[in-house]
Amino acid sequence: MPEILIGEYLFRRIKEIGIDSVFGVPGDFELALLDQVKPEGLSWVGTPNELVGAYAADGYARVKGAGALVTTFGPGELSALCGIGGAYTENVPVVHIVGYPPIPAQKSGKILHHTLGDGIFDHYIRISAELSCATTALDDPVTAPSEIDRVLNAMLYHSKPAYIGISEDIAYSMVSDEYLKTPLVQTLGPAAPEAEAKAVAEIVRTLASAKAPIIMVDGGAARHNWESFVNPLIEALKIPFFQTMIGKGVANEESPYFAGSYGGAGSWPVKVRSEVESADCILWLGNYPSDFNTGIFSENTEGATIIDLQRFFVKIGQTKYDARINHVLPKLIEAFNAHPQLAQFPVEPLAPVAAPASTPQIIEQDWLWDRLSTFLQPGDLVVTETGTCQGGINATRFPNGSHGWTQGIYGSIGYAAGSAVGASVAAKETGLYKRIVLITGEGSLQLTVQALSLLNRLGVPPVVFVLNNKGYTIERFFRGWTADYNDVPMWDYSALSRALSPEVDVKGFRVETAAELDGLLSDQEFAQASYPRIVDMVMDVYDGPTSLKSVFAEKAKKMQAAQGH
Amino acid sequence: MPEILIGEYLFRRIKEIGIDSVFGVPGDFELALLDQVKPEGLSWVGTPNELVGAYAADGYARVKGAGALVTTFGPGELSALCGIGGAYTENVPVVHIVGYPPIPAQKSGKILHHTLGDGIFDHYIRISAELSCATTALDDPVTAPSEIDRVLNAMLYHSKPAYIGISEDIAYSMVSDEYLKTPLVQTLGPAAPEAEAKAVAEIVRTLASAKAPIIMVDGGAARHNWESFVNPLIEALKIPFFQTMIGKGVANEESPYFAGSYGGAGSWPVKVRSEVESADCILWLGNYPSDFNTGIFSENTEGATIIDLQRFFVKIGQTKYDARINHVLPKLIEAFNAHPQLAQFPVEPLAPVAAPASTPQIIEQDWLWDRLSTFLQPGDLVVTETGTCQGGINATRFPNGSHGWTQGIYGSIGYAAGSAVGASVAAKETGLYKRIVLITGEGSLQLTVQALSLLNRLGVPPVVFVLNNKGYTIERFFRGWTADYNDVPMWDYSALSRALSPEVDVKGFRVETAAELDGLLSDQEFAQASYPRIVDMVMDVYDGPTSLKSVFAEKAKKMQAAQGH
Repeated sequence: MPEILIGEYLFRRIKEIGIDSVFGVPGDFELALLDQVKPEGLSWVGTPNELVGAYAADGYARVKGAGALVTTFGPGELSALCGIGGAYTENVPVVHIVGYPPIPAQKSGKILHHTLGDGIFDHYIRISAELSCATTALDDPVTAPSEIDRVLNAMLYHSKPAYIGISEDIAYSMVSDEYLKTPLVQTLGPAAPEAEAKAVAEIVRTLASAKAPIIMVDGGAARHNWESFVNPLIEALKIPFFQTMIGKGVANEESPYFAGSYGGAGSWPVKVRSEVESADCILWLGNYPSDFNTGIFSENTEGATIIDLQRFFVKIGQTKYDARINHVLPKLIEAFNAHPQLAQFPVEPLAPVAAPASTPQIIEQDWLWDRLSTFLQPGDLVVTETGTCQGGINATRFPNGSHGWTQGIYGSIGYAAGSAVGASVAAKETGLYKRIVLITGEGSLQLTVQALSLLNRLGVPPVVFVLNNKGYTIERFFRGWTADYNDVPMWDYSALSRALSPEVDVKGFRVETAAELDGLLSDQEFAQASYPRIVDMVMDVYDGPTSLKSVFAEKAKKMQAAQGH
Repeated sequence: MPEILIGEYLFRRIKEIGIDSVFGVPGDFELALLDQVKPEGLSWVGTPNELVGAYAADGYARVKGAGALVTTFGPGELSALCGIGGAYTENVPVVHIVGYPPIPAQKSGKILHHTLGDGIFDHYIRISAELSCATTALDDPVTAPSEIDRVLNAMLYHSKPAYIGISEDIAYSMVSDEYLKTPLVQTLGPAAPEAEAKAVAEIVRTLASAKAPIIMVDGGAARHNWESFVNPLIEALKIPFFQTMIGKGVANEESPYFAGSYGGAGSWPVKVRSEVESADCILWLGNYPSDFNTGIFSENTEGATIIDLQRFFVKIGQTKYDARINHVLPKLIEAFNAHPQLAQFPVEPLAPVAAPASTPQIIEQDWLWDRLSTFLQPGDLVVTETGTCQGGINATRFPNGSHGWTQGIYGSIGYAAGSAVGASVAAKETGLYKRIVLITGEGSLQLTVQALSLLNRLGVPPVVFVLNNKGYTIERFFRGWTADYNDVPMWDYSALSRALSPEVDVKGFRVETAAELDGLLSDQEFAQASYPRIVDMVMDVYDGPTSLKSVFAEKAKKMQAAQGH
């Protein structure tokens, strides 16, 4: 019976699910494991620190369907946790492989580095269990293959992070390769076929009887290749569609059915709010009603029948059906392709994508987001940071063939730069994207600035836009408008980007006026270049996109009302 | 009855234990809390990310006795955990204050940003419980003051991190200030006074009857102001003393009793190993026999009676006494000040501190560590990174009046740069130190490079030495001598340091030969400058200090023996 090393087994499984690059930081407990990466046909992408690695694995997974991160026991894995937490919240399947001390060393009772000095070796797995759908610390070669399969299958099923602790002695133990004959389960099986069929029939009936049906593209159904169904569904239904902040980046915004972005008081354009709120039926692709995704709970769709398509169920009004998104969507597409047209809810068409009519003096937020629409190209992958960027990006129109995301639920600043690294590696591997556009604030970039070192070197050429407004402007909207805790120190971002990759021809630009930025964005050399570009945009400390201002104005009004004013 | 806001109460307690600066990163759940920092007479030190903040709080605590870090719920706190884990292992009291969502928002059932989207709010406190001696998430104003006191007292008692979750609604609730009349317990009370007295008598008797007694300054007894007892104890005993890697930085190395650094095969000078291992009695200040601290378990002191003074007990041979280090040490000093001299164990005196006799072509590790001895000055605070630096620093003699540390047990690369920030702030506050000397490798610096932004701006002037040897050389010693996973990309550290603080006059130096470095270190302008300096030292990829080479050679020999060769 042919045998295989357990480490090889693990990486063969990783490869099987479509992962070609593994991110991480080496540490002595995992070095032997790293020797097994390349022989299995995987690339190793060393990242400057573990948090950048975790964000990169997340970004990579959003393109390729799954991602992998390798860190070392203790300090390494703990440093990655914020990235794992974000992946958990946003349904991104990332396997976190942690190099454990050898089993005999664990059993020796001696104090090992990277431990808490107390001889206890399961603190860290308990920690990760809070942020994972499945965990294992392999301690027996006999059960290792089934444990690896269990954990990876759970990750694929739930579309959440999973954790595998593996020591070098386990990694170099031999096991039968028999298990490999059973592939991992990469597709959700049907729930109850009759319930799914009933759900589809009920969705068709409900939509057909609606007077003003719309589609809402949201994030709750996300991952597991759901993106491939969204545009065909819209084409089949032929009714207006809207998207939320975390749903943005998937659907074709050049579709004649695209009507704007919904987020209560933060809707763009403003008309969208009343349009959505006067619909009588909403086919909602994965409702995820978090604060940031709903204009801080300023949405109101109570007047509509909600058909909520989630990963594991369909809910129509108050009735829940046991169903899987990947089975329901194709059946819906099929049904509507054969169906006479649905009632057309009259929405005002969006203005055609065009350069802004006028150019302000300084780089105003509203102007910026509008202006970016004609800068973006098909083949762009746009990663947008939390903060004012997230409020603004809804006003930027993505050309068909471009995609993107923002970490809209978890909202960890620093995420975007790391995520862009993974996105870039995946873009190059898949050939799907030609340019990475990273849009971030300087306060956010400061957390994970070392990501630029990789972004400038790997993958496809990046364009980095830094909203340089002297601090955490989004926090100012919450509190501390002029408080110095919301300030960040001044850095020179162009010089920094060059210093982080001195052998790369990075071009840095510092722009202080809208006219300068307009000129730069119109420059074809800038747009088409194969070298990394970073644009340090000096902006007003207190400016934000109108949508964000509206959200906060409404929040303030609500609070005043609650206080009896 | 006068009342006080709970947030004010918390910060008043923080101030009471000697903390004057609070580190952290703002987030909307904690902004209201941050408004309470300054009114209580504390400084807020915003850090570029949470990991740097945690390391800074640790470094600060090592000087001032305790440190405080404020982060936001979820992403913020998780990003700090590696720093907290290190503080736990190394007995550094750091209070991690986390800004929680308001209690009504937690109870609303709505999905808040920074959560895992599952409506569960205690994931994170369970995580931190693994790395803390006490935790609380305040949810009731009535019990908040006693909870705060309980957790801070536990931190001071155990000298370990503690965790306080506090939402803005709790922070702005009023409580009686009555609790403040009872001070926190900042000193360990006596255990059993008779047991302590007996332990002291037994220690005196054991040492007096020894033929070859020595002192070992180690880390296990650390913190809680133990440093202040070490030098008086040595002066009272008048016998040779040695130190371990984590014990280094406390005792006066210009003392005539100083005999070198012990770590089995990694001892410095080489003679130390046999000297220590032929002693018949070792007064061991906090034995912490971890792998890194013992030359990977190559120590052998079985021939000696060990008197182990730990924080919470004294152990003489196999007999354990319930005793507290802070009560035992002064009594020992008193006893030995009155005692006739102990037997003198003949150790070869250390060579006087002097510049190396010759200068090699390249910057060899052994030469470097020797050369630094005459660069260091009284009033230096030296923070040394994990890796080859840790192996080397034992060969550097610290002048009397200089101090320092390395994170020798936890061994998290990236620690030193962040820790140096806290050290620098504490140095300025206390006036104890005039210069921060950070010694790190480029692979380590890459993890937390943003720390330089603060190091260049705050505290006392820094001198940063970067061992630039194209990767994780310490990992190569473990495995993957030429493996590319041990490589790191090239950065321009001088340009980087300037870009991170463009308004500061940072002087960068790149040195490729030992002669160049020698010249620089001899330059009085360089030595005395008030501006930040960074020295990028190009070194051989495969070089390490002799002590480290010896440790790994012995490890290899042991493994071969175990395999029957």
